[in-house]
Amino acid sequence: MNYPKPVTKLIESFAKLPGIGQKTAERMAFFVISDMKEADATQFARALIDAKRELFECEQCAFITDVNPCSICVDSSRERSLIAVVETSKDVLSLEKMQSFHGVYHVLGGVLSPLDGVGPEDIGIVSLIERLKSEDVEEIILALGATLEGDSTSQYLAKLLKDTGIKITRIARGLEMGRSIDYADEITLIRALEGRVELK
Amino acid sequence: MNYPKPVTKLIESFAKLPGIGQKTAERMAFFVISDMKEADATQFARALIDAKRELFECEQCAFITDVNPCSICVDSSRERSLIAVVETSKDVLSLEKMQSFHGVYHVLGGVLSPLDGVGPEDIGIVSLIERLKSEDVEEIILALGATLEGDSTSQYLAKLLKDTGIKITRIARGLEMGRSIDYADEITLIRALEGRVELK
Repeated sequence: MNYPKPVTKLIESFAKLPGIGQKTAERMAFFVISDMKEADATQFARALIDAKRELFECEQCAFITDVNPCSICVDSSRERSLIAVVETSKDVLSLEKMQSFHGVYHVLGGVLSPLDGVGPEDIGIVSLIERLKSEDVEEIILALGATLEGDSTSQYLAKLLKDTGIKITRIARGLEMGRSIDYADEITLIRALEGRVELK
Repeated sequence: MNYPKPVTKLIESFAKLPGIGQKTAERMAFFVISDMKEADATQFARALIDAKRELFECEQCAFITDVNPCSICVDSSRERSLIAVVETSKDVLSLEKMQSFHGVYHVLGGVLSPLDGVGPEDIGIVSLIERLKSEDVEEIILALGATLEGDSTSQYLAKLLKDTGIKITRIARGLEMGRSIDYADEITLIRALEGRVELK
């Protein structure tokens, strides 16, 4: 037996989302069909269209925005001399949630990954260099993921920016909150030891 | 910092789906914004609209369909004298996947639940009774969930249909495949014992 075509199409669309398998896609499709209000489904459809049409990258920091420059870049209460370099727009939102970073951002849109053919010219490195020419930056915080690619990108950037006189820092590596020593992996432990701080 | 409005709206829509919390909704929204092709997003939007506009309940069995009667009801290879009573259209699809049931369905659209104010008149019981008047049915298989509500609905229907002369059966209860005795709950064990079959 075949599903009615509108059901199949909706399942297929849901299955394109990350982490959504066939079963979950079916559950979601049937939720939309049987339980979602028509107004909510219409709003959902509109939100999908608008998200693709009205959003673009901020010309200064490449954060996803519907105004140019983005609301972070134009916020005069933020320190423009402090730039956090992140991989994605989503990372910006994660950092914003802490409400303790008051600098601005630079979204690379990826990390260096020679195996996947991602080189320096494929991510926002050129735009970062350009930006440093016109702005008075004191510190760049490399806030990339603790992965092999994140690390080599950080190292690449640190080397590239060495002679600018700008202070280059990287966010700390160590045990995550709630993690016990015996559950931590070896590399995390090595980094936690390397990054130890003196208690006074 | 506030998200750009189109981002917020998309996150809100995703968060209305079952089992999707704020974090997952954000991940999905950013996937749509950064990684999904515009054509796929447009297709997704269209699928949502079409699912609400083009689907309705089959007038015979109440299964979700875009043709009336549905493709199962008009399929002449199926035994119309055998009706499986299920709770939702999704249950029909689960049973269809087995490819071993060759009867037709009757979708109740719910189960009796006095605490939630769901009585016999709120689910497809009247339409089932009507249907039995005009069709020559030999057996009704009650294929409802093994929950308190599913069980009382089965009992209610069995009592209601007792004098029709139609054979009323209920799908078996017992250990699920792969389940060991010591992990099974008490009620499952009681039902597995009650439903024991003789090995010859």
